Amino acid sequence: MKRVVIIGGGFAGLAAARELGGARGVEVTLLDRRNHHLFQPLLYQVAMAGLSPAEIAQPIRSLLSKHANIRVLREEVTEVDFARQLVRSRQRSHPYDYLVIACGSWHHYFGHEEWEPFAPGLKTVEQATEIRRRVLDAFEEAEKEEDAARQRALLTFAVVGGGPTGVELAGAIGEMSRFTLARDFRRIDPKLARIVLIEAGPRILPGFAPELASRAVRDLESLGVQVWTSSPVSKVDADGVEIGDERLRCATVLWAAGVRPAPLTEAIGRQPGVELHGSGRVVVAPDLSLPAWPGVFVAGDQAYLEDERGRPLPGLAPVALQQGRYLGELLRRELSGRPRPGPFRYRDKGQLATIGRRRAIAQMRRLRLAGPLAWVIWLVVHIYYLVGFKNRLLVVIQWAWSYWRFRRGARLIVDKTWRFYGE
Amino acid sequence: MKRVVIIGGGFAGLAAARELGGARGVEVTLLDRRNHHLFQPLLYQVAMAGLSPAEIAQPIRSLLSKHANIRVLREEVTEVDFARQLVRSRQRSHPYDYLVIACGSWHHYFGHEEWEPFAPGLKTVEQATEIRRRVLDAFEEAEKEEDAARQRALLTFAVVGGGPTGVELAGAIGEMSRFTLARDFRRIDPKLARIVLIEAGPRILPGFAPELASRAVRDLESLGVQVWTSSPVSKVDADGVEIGDERLRCATVLWAAGVRPAPLTEAIGRQPGVELHGSGRVVVAPDLSLPAWPGVFVAGDQAYLEDERGRPLPGLAPVALQQGRYLGELLRRELSGRPRPGPFRYRDKGQLATIGRRRAIAQMRRLRLAGPLAWVIWLVVHIYYLVGFKNRLLVVIQWAWSYWRFRRGARLIVDKTWRFYGE
Repeated sequence: MKRVVIIGGGFAGLAAARELGGARGVEVTLLDRRNHHLFQPLLYQVAMAGLSPAEIAQPIRSLLSKHANIRVLREEVTEVDFARQLVRSRQRSHPYDYLVIACGSWHHYFGHEEWEPFAPGLKTVEQATEIRRRVLDAFEEAEKEEDAARQRALLTFAVVGGGPTGVELAGAIGEMSRFTLARDFRRIDPKLARIVLIEAGPRILPGFAPELASRAVRDLESLGVQVWTSSPVSKVDADGVEIGDERLRCATVLWAAGVRPAPLTEAIGRQPGVELHGSGRVVVAPDLSLPAWPGVFVAGDQAYLEDERGRPLPGLAPVALQQGRYLGELLRRELSGRPRPGPFRYRDKGQLATIGRRRAIAQMRRLRLAGPLAWVIWLVVHIYYLVGFKNRLLVVIQWAWSYWRFRRGARLIVDKTWRFYGE
Repeated sequence: MKRVVIIGGGFAGLAAARELGGARGVEVTLLDRRNHHLFQPLLYQVAMAGLSPAEIAQPIRSLLSKHANIRVLREEVTEVDFARQLVRSRQRSHPYDYLVIACGSWHHYFGHEEWEPFAPGLKTVEQATEIRRRVLDAFEEAEKEEDAARQRALLTFAVVGGGPTGVELAGAIGEMSRFTLARDFRRIDPKLARIVLIEAGPRILPGFAPELASRAVRDLESLGVQVWTSSPVSKVDADGVEIGDERLRCATVLWAAGVRPAPLTEAIGRQPGVELHGSGRVVVAPDLSLPAWPGVFVAGDQAYLEDERGRPLPGLAPVALQQGRYLGELLRRELSGRPRPGPFRYRDKGQLATIGRRRAIAQMRRLRLAGPLAWVIWLVVHIYYLVGFKNRLLVVIQWAWSYWRFRRGARLIVDKTWRFYGE
């Protein structure tokens, strides 16, 4: 009986486990510090009060429960020991014959971790709920504020980072203020909210063709979002954001500017023969194994691999999903005595980004689309890849409702503490 | 222009505000420390991972947005001054001509507030999420635990309080362990979880007829719940519960044993001429006004009023709802120069409690029902009273799904902190 240990229940880890489900002669242990698999491409909608967390999250345990050879443990892996073929959590060690590492990435403040309290990132359900709380809070506080300058700061929202997540967040705040909240307040006019998307580079959405990115800028502007490019942030604090000698007073700053691989990568990097790329990702062989450790594989955002044209594979859900499936298949073959398959090849089905209602951009090979059709494609693709029939149904209803009624389904401000009688 | 201030956006406050929406010559200000109205009768389903918080909560602001004469402010009222006709929050004062107080109740540890960290109550979304986290956590930890005694404690759940909430919580844990989680674990058998419902009085569900209560006991037992009556809890700590010299080791204790009116009641009690009942509730005249202050009204769980037969009205959602409507109507009449209506009369439409799938009890006047029909009535009534068409649709889908698949839609363990880089 061979033991396969998978660290991480994201797109890559879950796909690998599913491929190995029911395979003979193999026992799989999937370790994750969370109990749920999260559909991260829609997490910004939780942050923007459009969806509930449970609509895009599923217990890993129940996703894999039909496979008797898979065991799921909620455990945070803190150390790996490739020589002894062990992974360690705080409580215990797990020996393995094959190891799949797919812990994903965290957001990253480029050495300014002290900015985090003022500018939350968007990687977990907790962060999405926190962002929702802050954005809705700002409107509630503004409604009560007597001081004009303070009220203006409350109605100013900065989103740092002009990638797809930043664009989606900024567009959603624009849409929320222009449509959803427009009628609900008496003293303030939510339509006067200022939303600023701040990007350090010369343009937003660098992964897309320039004409699509500039269409996205126009779409954002039509929702009241101003795009500031070539604007590296030099400071974030409770009062707002500094860009060189410019200063934007705002009560809400959201961080979508950078990611780095999950912290376990450091432990991996300390193992002999492991090479880390400058981005912090683990350099893998074309079959996703480590060159020095052929029984250890790294997949998803944590892995560094270049495509045929020498470009690094992006940290996207489709890459992780395809790598997970590839690894599951590879291990099935190896365990049944067949040779490993050829190198991993990423099949790029295209890229999508949505700005708001009927506003999206799509780039698929040579096809470039913007507007309602791109938006419909975005909808269909995201519903299709969402895990679980019931979640698909719930999300479709939420979206249909928002579309017809300009409402958002989850406008809930939830406190951080649950106790009545102080700590 | 007369100013009506309403404190609290629960069933009573919201119903009163809605009655006053669009009334001429009146400006309404509704103050609540939360941004949402919560459908508390279904809150236990959030705690039991069956529903998402947003499915039973709606922003008060958007529920009232169509009425231009109503202003909603998220503010916690800390003081009242009946002589000067003012209510005060930390930030400012609100003068009023008429005041409606409906802040509801909190749970209550009978002088043992130090038990709260070990035995959360169920009044807010945060507490429901915390309970969900603890219950799901216990199963996850048990799956990993090597020590048999510790594992048994992790798989033991105590629910203190044999009213409808306690019965619903205990039944739901029973059902979750017997059906939903049964296949998902490898090392533990969730069906062996011990669930104990602990009641200080001689029987559970004292509001129901004895034969219905004993049917509920049988239904609970069929889900693996043991009912301990005449068992006043003498201690709760991290290890479990003590009842006299008996001791139950359990990792999870839930509190459904007692409520008291919200803390603002103390400030009300300090006003001249105000009488508090022994239960802490404010004694009101038959028209819900305060005998010494005819422009001040108290409704819902906070008010103490007896029915025609001298029995105090229970702290239930239908009472609050009917009182809110009555007050809205009363104020409309008074403001248009007509006399106040006759005294408030509670129309008791009956009581319902659900134990689990197809298990419920219903008592309506002389009709007494138990089993599938009572359960269907319970479903229909709760869907009917739930606020908002979309929420009704989402809840129906969640329930249909749970019914067919024995699944629960929101099995999400959410942490208390959202930050990566320590405090």
